[in-house]
Formats: sequence, structure tokens, C-alpha cells
Amino acid sequence: MAGTGAAATTLTGAEALVSTLADHGVTACFANPGTSEMHLVTALDREPRIRSVLCLFEGVATGAADGYARVTGTPAMTLLHLGAGFLNAGANIHNAKRAYSPMINVIGDHAVPHLRYDAPLTSNIMGLAGPNSVWIKSADRVGDTGALAAEAWAASFGPAPGPVSLILPADSAWNEGGVVGAARARPSLRAPVGARIETAARAVRAAAKPAILINGTALTAEGLGHAARLKAAGIRVLTDTFFARQARGAGRFAPDRMQYFAEGAVADLQGTDLMLIAGTQAPVAFFSYPGKPSLLVPEGCTPMLLGGPESDSAAILAALADALGAKEAAPPAPLELPGPPTGALNAASIGASIARHMPEGTFVSDDGVSNGLPSFLMTAKARPHDWMMLTGGAIGQGMPLALGAALGAKGRKVLCLTGDGAGMYTNQALWSMAREGVDVVTVVFVNHSYRILNIELARTGAGNPGRVAADLLGLGRPEIDWVALSQAQGVPASNASTAEEFDAALARAFAAEGPQLIAAHVPAR
Amino acid sequence: MAGTGAAATTLTGAEALVSTLADHGVTACFANPGTSEMHLVTALDREPRIRSVLCLFEGVATGAADGYARVTGTPAMTLLHLGAGFLNAGANIHNAKRAYSPMINVIGDHAVPHLRYDAPLTSNIMGLAGPNSVWIKSADRVGDTGALAAEAWAASFGPAPGPVSLILPADSAWNEGGVVGAARARPSLRAPVGARIETAARAVRAAAKPAILINGTALTAEGLGHAARLKAAGIRVLTDTFFARQARGAGRFAPDRMQYFAEGAVADLQGTDLMLIAGTQAPVAFFSYPGKPSLLVPEGCTPMLLGGPESDSAAILAALADALGAKEAAPPAPLELPGPPTGALNAASIGASIARHMPEGTFVSDDGVSNGLPSFLMTAKARPHDWMMLTGGAIGQGMPLALGAALGAKGRKVLCLTGDGAGMYTNQALWSMAREGVDVVTVVFVNHSYRILNIELARTGAGNPGRVAADLLGLGRPEIDWVALSQAQGVPASNASTAEEFDAALARAFAAEGPQLIAAHVPAR
Repeated sequence: MAGTGAAATTLTGAEALVSTLADHGVTACFANPGTSEMHLVTALDREPRIRSVLCLFEGVATGAADGYARVTGTPAMTLLHLGAGFLNAGANIHNAKRAYSPMINVIGDHAVPHLRYDAPLTSNIMGLAGPNSVWIKSADRVGDTGALAAEAWAASFGPAPGPVSLILPADSAWNEGGVVGAARARPSLRAPVGARIETAARAVRAAAKPAILINGTALTAEGLGHAARLKAAGIRVLTDTFFARQARGAGRFAPDRMQYFAEGAVADLQGTDLMLIAGTQAPVAFFSYPGKPSLLVPEGCTPMLLGGPESDSAAILAALADALGAKEAAPPAPLELPGPPTGALNAASIGASIARHMPEGTFVSDDGVSNGLPSFLMTAKARPHDWMMLTGGAIGQGMPLALGAALGAKGRKVLCLTGDGAGMYTNQALWSMAREGVDVVTVVFVNHSYRILNIELARTGAGNPGRVAADLLGLGRPEIDWVALSQAQGVPASNASTAEEFDAALARAFAAEGPQLIAAHVPAR
Repeated sequence: MAGTGAAATTLTGAEALVSTLADHGVTACFANPGTSEMHLVTALDREPRIRSVLCLFEGVATGAADGYARVTGTPAMTLLHLGAGFLNAGANIHNAKRAYSPMINVIGDHAVPHLRYDAPLTSNIMGLAGPNSVWIKSADRVGDTGALAAEAWAASFGPAPGPVSLILPADSAWNEGGVVGAARARPSLRAPVGARIETAARAVRAAAKPAILINGTALTAEGLGHAARLKAAGIRVLTDTFFARQARGAGRFAPDRMQYFAEGAVADLQGTDLMLIAGTQAPVAFFSYPGKPSLLVPEGCTPMLLGGPESDSAAILAALADALGAKEAAPPAPLELPGPPTGALNAASIGASIARHMPEGTFVSDDGVSNGLPSFLMTAKARPHDWMMLTGGAIGQGMPLALGAALGAKGRKVLCLTGDGAGMYTNQALWSMAREGVDVVTVVFVNHSYRILNIELARTGAGNPGRVAADLLGLGRPEIDWVALSQAQGVPASNASTAEEFDAALARAFAAEGPQLIAAHVPAR
């Protein structure tokens, strides 16, 4: 042991942590370091297996790690500066938690002996980060950093995958005595439970109008193949309204999608007497409204959980289809590309252009709020692609997610759809796109408005907006110049105000190398 | 009761909350609303005593509320959208907590009956917001919103002032049955403790080299007048390195300031055998470094706490000066304005221009990190002004703080000094400056670098930066065009690359109405 231990004891705790994560296949670190993370920076400098990406705001780092995870299926590392860095990172950690994305947030902290002095940047990191972490520990001893990194990596896979927080005090980072953590096996999603499948098959045969709500691995190309068999066997297949990732377009079976507004969802499900659930939970309204339902299961319908987000829902669909003897499959979507749109620019004409020009294999990062839906609908028969939604409702995910997806999906294009309100939250992502030279085409729906809120104001019965309310929901006065904002951060950009202009701009943007932005001027109403 | 109760029961909970805060003198709300806050938006629409300011990112809202509090001494209200909104707001709440700034964060939440369904935006708000709130409650019943708003207002004043969190579920906001909260008295800071003052006076007489470390109300013009008496009585007067606000310039006594780096601070205090403390805590190093001290009290020096941040430190200084029979006062700073700087643009020549041109009464918001110090030093004899520091170390405070300060300090100019790294964090503040037309002159120190981190990397002994490390600490590749970024959000801007250019640009900016930005190109080393 003396002979082999010599090398290990010359590692700093930071080096042991970084090496351990690299050993486990982590290949990207999205970082915004501070003084307490300088030894992590040095360790990253010496670790060629991990690509370090500077983000000018921590919410960009965690949004990018989420995008990276959705594309690769594996966690990226982030590097955050104490409790304040975690807070800045927090909204996109919340979104990642709701997307069941594995992510390893390494949060630097003061040296352990310094914590008792309550220095200005001191905060209760365990308390702040705990609620949105599926695992959280602090590496208070240098010898533990490697083992805890391995534990954090494994914990990010579940039972249900999600963001984990590994707090790294500065002295655990800078001291020598780091030990690389032993390799851990990657935890698997839960396999189907045979008894549940049989019960479900019986219930399907007894039901007049059965449906299945799916998410998770059921939304891969393979999972949707099994969903198509269920459809052919008479089961309506619906996805959650929002999901981390769905394979779509020509050659893929196209399931229905739960409607966003509660009253629409319940009306759409009228008569459904059995709702199977695989890879998600019983459907609930995004928000509550006076006098409207929260649970989106119609009267007389029995929800039956086959497996939650911790389960391999693709395998569940396969097992259920087998139990039902479903050999045929409903037909997949054909390839149908619309002609060139003309006239006024709006969400529908933008959707047509996207369907026309989006290359095969594109990843779509959709933070388009009120303008994203037409593009989603119009690309059902486009070239095969993957669509990634905002799962947690915290806007400002779109551009960071696109950055990380592009770094994970080398050789494939990324299309980012974002509202102007959402885009402003994390506009710093543009700079990192420029630095990394990623193939991201960002379309900003510029309507100078939180348009969704003007819709919601009416729906909640809060009354007609007066001047103050209108100002609180409007982004005009002054209008933001998105082309200037983008170019200021190094991303080439152009305006489009007609369908023809947008169509040409989008074709050019997809043909170009490196990031591009189009400010698409759409009506506010 | 039946006769008078009729009007009250027609108020929504949101209206009762907003009316109660207005009754208590709250005059500003910095907001980024979402669906669950629509009834708060309507209530603000109907409340003419509160000015509602839309911020495009929640960290701008809380930074602005902090600036408003530092200038007016009273809390502003913020409006945040669930746990995700709190997280975005969190870093500047941390800073405000460290500045002892009163602030009332109203955090919207789902309707109480909706919470059990774990909808996508649901999170543990109490858990997330608790660690950085000096008071936190949830108004789970509509009848409680007014009383809790009054309680929150009072709690924001202390014992030590700070940010409070009032969670408002959507049904408590939208239901009728709101009751305006009864008026509460404003809590006062703690008065001096006579016995402590007498003990301190005896210790001063016995000490060879006494000093007093001050913060809080001791840094007002009145407090510094008493500090000058202590100085004349042979006590060295030092402020904390960072403070919420200090009166400075001609006519004010200029105390020393604790040095930032531990080794410098300890050397500076060598021989000090008594350290009195008023309005703050014992001095500690901002960060810890291998082999360097955390507590900045030299060997052989006794720290003696006269009152912490909960105390009226100006009154403590007055009482101590009286106890010492100190009738004379050390002379205040004279008015001395430097001549026009020439040649290369750097932090020193910028400081000279600021000293020359800064109008009387200016509030300075300093988030300048490595470039702020020369401006601070060179303005000691400028026209009377107030300086506001980054107290909590979470960069991205400067521009939001300036926005709020300008709205609170009508008729007075605000100068914002920010690094380019810090400025990118919350660049959305520029848009709100433009919308509100505030008199803020923002100077961005553009060096395309987290320069402080390059200094810290060397100090922590983390080794010479390789390419990856250099990239993680550098903002070049691509260089950000601050003039375009500012103009894109409606704030007129110009570049300055020489001392002459900057001097002329600053004179023009102070003479103009409305927000202005100068990108000051300074060396990276």
C-alpha cells in the first residue's frame, strides 16, 4: 500500500474530485468560479477529459448542464460560488429537477475553520440548496472529496434522476491528501412490475375508452414505437404537456399532448374511463384558478400508476403491449414539409418555416411560452428531431439549455425558441454560445410583452389591466433591440418582420456555422 | 361592527396586503409577476401611493429594493413569482441581509389547495427563502394578509434590519375577505448601553493604541461628527471594508477603512491594543487563504463590542465621546478637486474625473471590484456625497442598487461603478433604468477579465493559470460591446479609452437627464 499510496497523497482534494468525475464519464463543466474555487479551476486546468465552459451568470451554467444531460443522458458538472452562486443557479436547477435531469452541482464554500466567523459571503448552503437537490453533502475532509464525488455522480441517476449538490469547502479543495473515488456502477431506471402490467392489461380490456399518459424514456424513438402498438390496440396515448425530451417528426409515432389549460384538458379527456400513467405522475393543472380543477382526471376515470419518473417507461409500454398481444403499430408520422409562408409574421408562419428548414437531428429548446405551441404543432411531420420543453415553469431556460445541448450533441443543430421576456432572464447565454462557437440558431419571439400574463390576467378574473398593470406585463417603453443585444455578445443576428424575411433568415442561419439569432417580430395579441 | 365591516370584506387579500404596506409608508414595489400574482398586480394597479417598477429579472428587483432602502431608510416591496422567482432574487437578498437593509419580499405561491398536487412550479419556498430571511411567514388565510403585511413591515426593521419574506398563496390573494392590517410602530435601533460605554471609556484611557471599528448609523454625517471627536481624543477610527452607506467628501470626517486582504489588515493594525466595535462585528477576512488568519484582530489586541448591527452606532459614538469628555473634533475633509487627468485611462484617472465632476449629493453604487478602490480614495475630498458598497460579496448588485437608489433619492444623481464581470450578472437593470428615466450614470470598468480572480488565483497558491484556467477567469473571446448592450436596452452610452475622453464623457453624462453609460476601457493588469 505504501508504494501505491504515494501518488494519491499528492493530489489536492479538488484534483481528486475532478478526476473522479472524469473517471465516471463527466465530460463538461459549466462554471462561474470565485475566490473559494481557485483550486477547482486549477484542477480543471489539469484535467483534459473535462471541457470547462465559462458562463457569465450561474443560471446559464445550470441551464446548460440540464441541456447537456437531456442530450447525453449523463450529468455535467457545474462550478458555483458559495450560496450566492447557488441562488443565481437555482431557477434552472428547479427546472432540471422537474425534467429529471442528472446534474452535479459543485458548490464552493469557505474553508471549514473560516465558517465560524460569519464572513460576508457565508450562508447556509445546506439549507438553501437542500430543497431542490435530490442528494446533498458537504466534503468537509480532504480525504472524502473523491468518494463523495463518486457518490454524487451515482445519486444524480436516482431512483429518479435529478440535480445533486456537493459542497466543497476551500480547505478540502486546496489541501493535499485527495483520494480518487472508487468507480461506481450507473444506477438503472426501475424495470416494469409484472403484476402491475397484468392488472393494467385486464383494466384496458374492461375499459370503454382507455388512455395512457406517458413521459420519460417512453418519449424516445424506441418508446414511441411501443406507444404506437398501444395506440393500435385501442389506447389513446398522451404525453405530459411539458417533457424533458421527445423524439418527433417523420418516422416517429406522434402521441397526443395534454392541454395546458385545465378546462381544455378536462374537456379533451371527457369520457376517458381509464388513465394509465407511465414515467410521470397524475396530471395536474400548471396553475390553479378560481373555481377550476387542479387534478386533470375527468369524473369517472380511474388513474392507474404503472411507474413514476423513476421507472423505465419505454420498457413499461413494451411489456404492456406484449401483455395485450399488440403486434401491429399505429402508423408513424409521414414526412410533409409546408411550402414557403408569405405575408404577416406570426407564430404560425414561423412554425411553417421551422418545419421547412429544420435539419434532421435538430434538438429544439423551447422556452417560447405563448408562441411556442404553433411551432410544435407544425413540426409534427418535419424531418426527425427532438423537442425539449420547459418542465419547471421558470422562464429563462431556453438559451442556456440550447448552449449545453449543442455542446453535448456534437454534429447536430440546436434550435432555440424563446420569448423576449424569457430570453432577457439569461441573455448572458449568448456570450457563451459565441465563445464556444456552438451551432445554435436562436429565434426570439419579440412581442414586447409578457403575452402569457395578459392572457392569464383575464383568466384569473383579476380584472382589466389599468395603466400600472399594463406596464407590469409589457416590455415596451423602451423596446429591446435584440439584434444589438446579440451582436454585443458576439452572436450574429438579424431582424425579421415578414414571413418571407423570416423564412430566408432561418435558411441562412441553419446553413451557417456557429451561433445565430433571429429577432422575429410577432404581434402582441 | 356590521356597519363598518361591509367595506372591508369587499377587499381581496392582495388589496389588503398592498393597502397595509402603503399605510406604513411603502412607496415602491419592484416586481416581476407571474400567473399566481395577477391579483397583486391588480391591487398595485389600484394603489396610487406605491410606484410599481417592472424588472426583467428578479435579482434586479431585490437589488433595487436594497438601494431604495439604503437611500430612504425604509423598505420597498418586491413581487416575486414562487420559489423560482425567489431563487433569481436571492443573491441580492443575501447582499441586502449583509447590508442590514429592510426589504419586504412578497413571494407568490400556488393556491393552498393546489399545493398538494406538486404542480411543476411548486417548491419548498419556506425552505429556500428561510435561511436569508430575518422573518418569514405564509399568509395561508385571506383574512391574515393585512395583519401579516404589517408584521412583515415591522420585522424588516429588526432588531437588526434585513429582508423579510411574506409568502402569498394565490387564493389568499384572489379571495375577498381581506382586512387591512392595524398600524404598527417602527422599531428603533438599540440605544447605547451605559455600562458598556463606561467600561469602554476606562479601557480607552488605559490603552496605548486604541481603535474603534464602526459601521451602521455611525457612518452618517452626524455619526461621523462624533467619530471625529473620538479621533481628536486619540482613538483611531476605522470603518468596515464594506458598508451599506457612508457620508463622505468635503465637510465630513474621513475615517480609515479596514483593508481587504488579511495580511494587509493585520499589518495595518499592528500595535493596536484595544479595538472597540460599534454597529458591526469583529473584523474577519472576506475569504480564507492557506496559512493566513481569519480574524483580523492583531495579537495582544482586545476586541470590545459596544453594540452590533442592531444598535444605533451613531448614538454609541456620541455617548462614548461624552464619557471621554471629548469636546474637540478632528478636522473634516477639505474640498480639493483634482485637475483634469490626461493620458492613459485607468482606475486612478477615472477616480480623478469622478472627483472633479461628481455633483454634491451624489449616491455612489460601487460594485467595481478590483477597480473601485482608486475612485473611493480619490473622492475623499470631493463634493459631499454618499458611498454604497457591495456588502455581501455577490457581484451583480451595482446597477440594480443604483436603479433603486435613484428612485428613492429624487433630485440627487446616482453614480454606478461596476466591473464588466459584475455588470453582466444583472445587465437587465439597464432596461428598467431606461423605462423609469432615472438619473443614473453607470461607469463600466471594461477589462474583459475577472481581474480580481487573477489576483486571487496567485494568492491562494493555486498555481499559474494554464489555458483552461485563464479562459475561466477571462471575459475576452469575444469582447462584450457595452455600448451596444446598453443602447439595446434604451440607455445612451459611449466608449472612453483615454483619460481625456473619459473626463469629457463623464461631464456630459452628469449634465444629461436620464440614464447614461460609459464603457471605460481599462487595462486588464
